[in-house]
Amino acid sequence: MKCYLECIPCFVKQAVEAGNILSSTASQREEILQKSLKLIINMDRNMTPPEAGMKIHSIIKFITGKKDPYKEIKDYYNNLGPEFYKKYKGKVNKSKDRLLTAVRCAIAGNVVDFGVAGEFDAEKDIEKVMTQDFAYFDYDAFKKILSKSRSLLYLADNVPETFFDRILIEELEDKEITYVVKSAPIINDATVEDALIAGIDGIARVVESGSCAPGTVLSLCSAEFLRTMKESDMVISKGQGNYEALEDIKGKDVFFMLKAKCKVVAKHLNVKVGDIIFKYKGGK
Amino acid sequence: MKCYLECIPCFVKQAVEAGNILSSTASQREEILQKSLKLIINMDRNMTPPEAGMKIHSIIKFITGKKDPYKEIKDYYNNLGPEFYKKYKGKVNKSKDRLLTAVRCAIAGNVVDFGVAGEFDAEKDIEKVMTQDFAYFDYDAFKKILSKSRSLLYLADNVPETFFDRILIEELEDKEITYVVKSAPIINDATVEDALIAGIDGIARVVESGSCAPGTVLSLCSAEFLRTMKESDMVISKGQGNYEALEDIKGKDVFFMLKAKCKVVAKHLNVKVGDIIFKYKGGK
Repeated sequence: MKCYLECIPCFVKQAVEAGNILSSTASQREEILQKSLKLIINMDRNMTPPEAGMKIHSIIKFITGKKDPYKEIKDYYNNLGPEFYKKYKGKVNKSKDRLLTAVRCAIAGNVVDFGVAGEFDAEKDIEKVMTQDFAYFDYDAFKKILSKSRSLLYLADNVPETFFDRILIEELEDKEITYVVKSAPIINDATVEDALIAGIDGIARVVESGSCAPGTVLSLCSAEFLRTMKESDMVISKGQGNYEALEDIKGKDVFFMLKAKCKVVAKHLNVKVGDIIFKYKGGK
Repeated sequence: MKCYLECIPCFVKQAVEAGNILSSTASQREEILQKSLKLIINMDRNMTPPEAGMKIHSIIKFITGKKDPYKEIKDYYNNLGPEFYKKYKGKVNKSKDRLLTAVRCAIAGNVVDFGVAGEFDAEKDIEKVMTQDFAYFDYDAFKKILSKSRSLLYLADNVPETFFDRILIEELEDKEITYVVKSAPIINDATVEDALIAGIDGIARVVESGSCAPGTVLSLCSAEFLRTMKESDMVISKGQGNYEALEDIKGKDVFFMLKAKCKVVAKHLNVKVGDIIFKYKGGK
């Protein structure tokens, strides 16, 4: 998906909000904004939003001098993770359809987002997703393709979504799962360190995508990752950034699991902002 | 009030949304955005938001070649005006405190805004204001100063707010009222033509501010307007744009009536977005 004109105010908003969240100085905030505006003016409009986001957040890293500007935020949510895990694993244990409840959990974990999302109330919004209707619900296709697959590529999104991903991965225990994280910190996206904190390494092979774009933009990924992807029987793609990067992918069985967090993606999916998506993009 | 960094994404959003609302061509929309971004980069941050808004909307007028890009939108709301007037005049007629209900109507009319406001549902949002608690409620000061005043300057905001203003002005019938509109079309702000459509000319003297900034920025106003303002005993200032332009005014009894429509103004007033304001700024 390319950047729409409507994405531009959102990038500017991210540049301003990042300055505030990271308690930068006034001059740093102004510099982040100025450099971001200049970048946007000259930006190739065919770029995907995650690519553009990566560039904006590179500016933020450069000006704040922080390689991982959202570290404190991630630490906060990583600390909450075990409690989330316990609570929602409990819901899976009590449910009639464990797999479906685990899918719901994985989508619910997607609400915490310091990129595109506006304000959110993590606990409340997660609970909401647990009972919300799906705008796309390709569960039958999921079960069918899952039953035929041996290897599954799981494209991670954010922290503490990682803890919710663990819940879903635990329901897929007979599969050979590769959990893909970003190669360097970007916003609150999961890195190898975050995957380890969530205990994913005990149940899946954890690999890096080869890039730090907040979405799996294939042209930016490593050859190694691309090979792994090619060899996988099916893909679970978490979150909006991965959807933006991969919605037009061909030749793979991909299941997108996300909450539509902005008007552009909602419109692209023909749903409303806030809707939850469990969408199949057919392969063969 | 100066432009805060948080105002910048909003200006960019207005530039993009205006392009969509006005059904410009794709290349016009891109040009509006590009020129707006360049303007913002070089913009004096001490400018008030209405000044900046005027500059952004000048770009829109220039590129679309339309002197009054929002004419159709204003026509639509001007057509709804008489119905609004009838409905809410009826509420004043039935109320125990006519003046207070009329003030509420005047604030309720402030919800229709194609500048800073996000999405709105005019009828629903107007009704909400009619029963909402006030975040500031300087009604006693208003009655006191009104009783001592002979001349009143009424700074208009938008269409169809004009019809709601008429309801309030009709309750101030023993005063000499000057109703101030913009000197040229800007967004859905009221002009002389709109004041006439709402029938304000029958109950007040209608004058222009001397500028088309979407807020009464004194440095941009005509000498004639400034003299009228100086000679007025008190001022009613409608809407966010006028608040942004005049919140630090000294030496005048001003009553701000508005709905707080964005985070920046809400924070400045120490209220929440969506709160309604009836606030006195003391003069002598």
